[in-house]
Amino acid sequence: MSLDLDTSTDGVLTADTHLVQSFADLNALKQDGARTVIVGAEGAYVTDSEGNQLIDGIGGLWCVNAGHRRREIIDAITEQLETLDFYSTFYNFTHPAAAGLAAKLAELAPGHLNKVHFGNSGSVANDSAIRILHHYYNRLGQPKKKQVLSRQGAYHGSTYLAIAMTTPEYSEGWDKAEGLIHHLKKPHHWREGEGMSEAEFLDALIADAKGRIEAIGAENIACFIAEPIMGAGGIIVPPKGYHAAMGALCRDYEIKYISDEVVTAFGRLGHFFASKDVFDVQPDIITTAKGLTSGYQPLSATIMSDEIYEVISGESGSFLHGMTYSGHPAAAAAGLANIALMERDQIPQTVRTTGKLFEGKLRDLADMDMVGEVRGSHFMMGIEFVRDKAAKTPFEVEDMIGLKVAQAAQKRGLIARPLGNILILSPTLVMDEAMIDTTAGILCESIAEVQNSL
Amino acid sequence: MSLDLDTSTDGVLTADTHLVQSFADLNALKQDGARTVIVGAEGAYVTDSEGNQLIDGIGGLWCVNAGHRRREIIDAITEQLETLDFYSTFYNFTHPAAAGLAAKLAELAPGHLNKVHFGNSGSVANDSAIRILHHYYNRLGQPKKKQVLSRQGAYHGSTYLAIAMTTPEYSEGWDKAEGLIHHLKKPHHWREGEGMSEAEFLDALIADAKGRIEAIGAENIACFIAEPIMGAGGIIVPPKGYHAAMGALCRDYEIKYISDEVVTAFGRLGHFFASKDVFDVQPDIITTAKGLTSGYQPLSATIMSDEIYEVISGESGSFLHGMTYSGHPAAAAAGLANIALMERDQIPQTVRTTGKLFEGKLRDLADMDMVGEVRGSHFMMGIEFVRDKAAKTPFEVEDMIGLKVAQAAQKRGLIARPLGNILILSPTLVMDEAMIDTTAGILCESIAEVQNSL
Repeated sequence: MSLDLDTSTDGVLTADTHLVQSFADLNALKQDGARTVIVGAEGAYVTDSEGNQLIDGIGGLWCVNAGHRRREIIDAITEQLETLDFYSTFYNFTHPAAAGLAAKLAELAPGHLNKVHFGNSGSVANDSAIRILHHYYNRLGQPKKKQVLSRQGAYHGSTYLAIAMTTPEYSEGWDKAEGLIHHLKKPHHWREGEGMSEAEFLDALIADAKGRIEAIGAENIACFIAEPIMGAGGIIVPPKGYHAAMGALCRDYEIKYISDEVVTAFGRLGHFFASKDVFDVQPDIITTAKGLTSGYQPLSATIMSDEIYEVISGESGSFLHGMTYSGHPAAAAAGLANIALMERDQIPQTVRTTGKLFEGKLRDLADMDMVGEVRGSHFMMGIEFVRDKAAKTPFEVEDMIGLKVAQAAQKRGLIARPLGNILILSPTLVMDEAMIDTTAGILCESIAEVQNSL
Repeated sequence: MSLDLDTSTDGVLTADTHLVQSFADLNALKQDGARTVIVGAEGAYVTDSEGNQLIDGIGGLWCVNAGHRRREIIDAITEQLETLDFYSTFYNFTHPAAAGLAAKLAELAPGHLNKVHFGNSGSVANDSAIRILHHYYNRLGQPKKKQVLSRQGAYHGSTYLAIAMTTPEYSEGWDKAEGLIHHLKKPHHWREGEGMSEAEFLDALIADAKGRIEAIGAENIACFIAEPIMGAGGIIVPPKGYHAAMGALCRDYEIKYISDEVVTAFGRLGHFFASKDVFDVQPDIITTAKGLTSGYQPLSATIMSDEIYEVISGESGSFLHGMTYSGHPAAAAAGLANIALMERDQIPQTVRTTGKLFEGKLRDLADMDMVGEVRGSHFMMGIEFVRDKAAKTPFEVEDMIGLKVAQAAQKRGLIARPLGNILILSPTLVMDEAMIDTTAGILCESIAEVQNSL
């Protein structure tokens, strides 16, 4: 019983009128030619319904870390489905794949992060982290300690709670959980630290955070949540020492530190987790998704410390949280196979070389007139375009400058992600030197084309 | 690279100490023997790590509708992964499986429910439905029309927003979205309608709902959300005509009607969707998950009317919502294969006979001393135990009466789900007459054993 899916452009686009796409201008998508149909993939590439092979410069959506169509991950999913297609981890039930992946994540996560609750999206991993900490403080008899420090520029997902932690620009016209979230300053030196050295900017950010904590009262604050490098907010790498200093501040005020490693984990920055290995901070909770299965299966994890677990697993009262598919067997098997593959092929270690090469090639574009800043690390990069380089003057929204460069790149065989005036690259981690050269070359040509058209 | 998962009881339970299970008493699970390891499955059965074959009386978790290890669904997932493992439905991208499933759901869903946003859990489907309606009313210039009518006894998931719509007993000690949700009366005639006929009870419920709407003000109410039959709240079938009457009330007051068909869809009640076909109500949104893929893949859908879509896809402003795995190719392929299988084998039609047989066999248990009420429909049944049958006196929590019956049943080869004084059965839909007889027999013996031990 083959599905015999219609993969023709017309066939898919007709069916697609029934699909409500995510984070899109739905009205603009009604126009002819506005949508691209992806029908196949292999390694670092995808293929569209017109037969074009494209470098997958966004890795699915920051997630296909191990590359497309890896036999090992597909086989693990199939074998799991052929053994146990589904059972839940509710009540007293468990199964080998969910338990095995929880144990493996406890081994990989830094410090005493040894307990894992599964979900199926980064949004849910973050929503769960906050719910779990609220319950933790209720059990400790501190029911007021519930508020959350997030940051301008953050992206933490799109449930009603997760979008509230996300930067306010992502909820214009949408509602969100009220009265719970405070947004600290965006740690973006180039835009926000005018006239300051990086060290001075860091001091200013930490002093500001300390002032906000004092004003709110640490007794009202459950946690600080931060991506090691901001992703959908525009690839913001904080000043050196920022996370370690924020970690110390949180410890001083007895505020839990949640590291949102939905994007930064599983090799993207050269390590399984970036918090401790790259940014020298020991979180109390790490949330992750995406690279956890390299996108082959919907899976997320909220990895918490033994200390948090001891409180929430104490006497009286149940853990009243979870989703049917928390720890889904096929998804957990995909996670285990993905990690085994990454360990066998030393993908994180390889990224320390290839990712640095990628970063370097993209940084070379910083000389172009229209490029204000090239930023990021390894395979997580952003290019911000400006109308006036010296004055850092942004383009207007109507200029759709990121979109124009992305379209120029797609025409040349590269998918990149436009985000206002920023172009984001988060490719698979299996790019070799030749592919990296091609990518940088396409970007250079595409930026030049748009620059010349202005 | 086989995963070579350790499937021994000891091996799994050692790894499992790292897993935070869902909706469980985590402290109780620390005890030896408290956990059951499920290692395999076939058709209507699962196998535990001690080699016991058990009838899967809860269908994974209300979800393995087509039965375990169906070749057709597994093959569709594998073939999809071998073609396109992952691409997102963000921005201007789409792919054949997501578009194809959206079109298929538009065909199956009643009335003008023709637009589909995907997620990966019922919780997210409901969280998304509310977020989308809030955005809808913002676009219509009615920013006050945001509150939600839910019901005592409801279960709508466990994000911060979804748990707020769920019955308050499920959030004791946990926080939730505040100020947004109103819980109407539980439509349970046997417990709540003392001294009234079913028709009188219905009138009382509708009058109460009308009074609440008038008190809150319809201009402040976005929607009413209801499961056709309450699931985790204890299998509550409302009085005849309830949903049609609530639907009419909602139309009168211009309140959107959301039908939470996470459990009731895909054959469980003998139809693909139950709202219109069984309960004669035309919702504005149907949310679903579970049976959508028969649990083989994490997938949910928020299916909305053309009218809602027209507003949210109007000019200016983007659809700022979605998860990376919204419309995951493998999950969408599983959904398509599952539906094709159900259509080919006429599973919903078969359930109209076998499900009714199951319901009847369970209703026969109502004569037992300890059984207060047997309720539900087809393959969605609940048995409520009472200390005193005539007075309907409940057992105490400490009696753990549901748990005792569930344990007695598991010893005899049947998994059922205890929920306080209620035992829930939501098996696969592939039970034949012999399996149904066996199930009813085990339940009878198990209830008798516990009854005799009192």
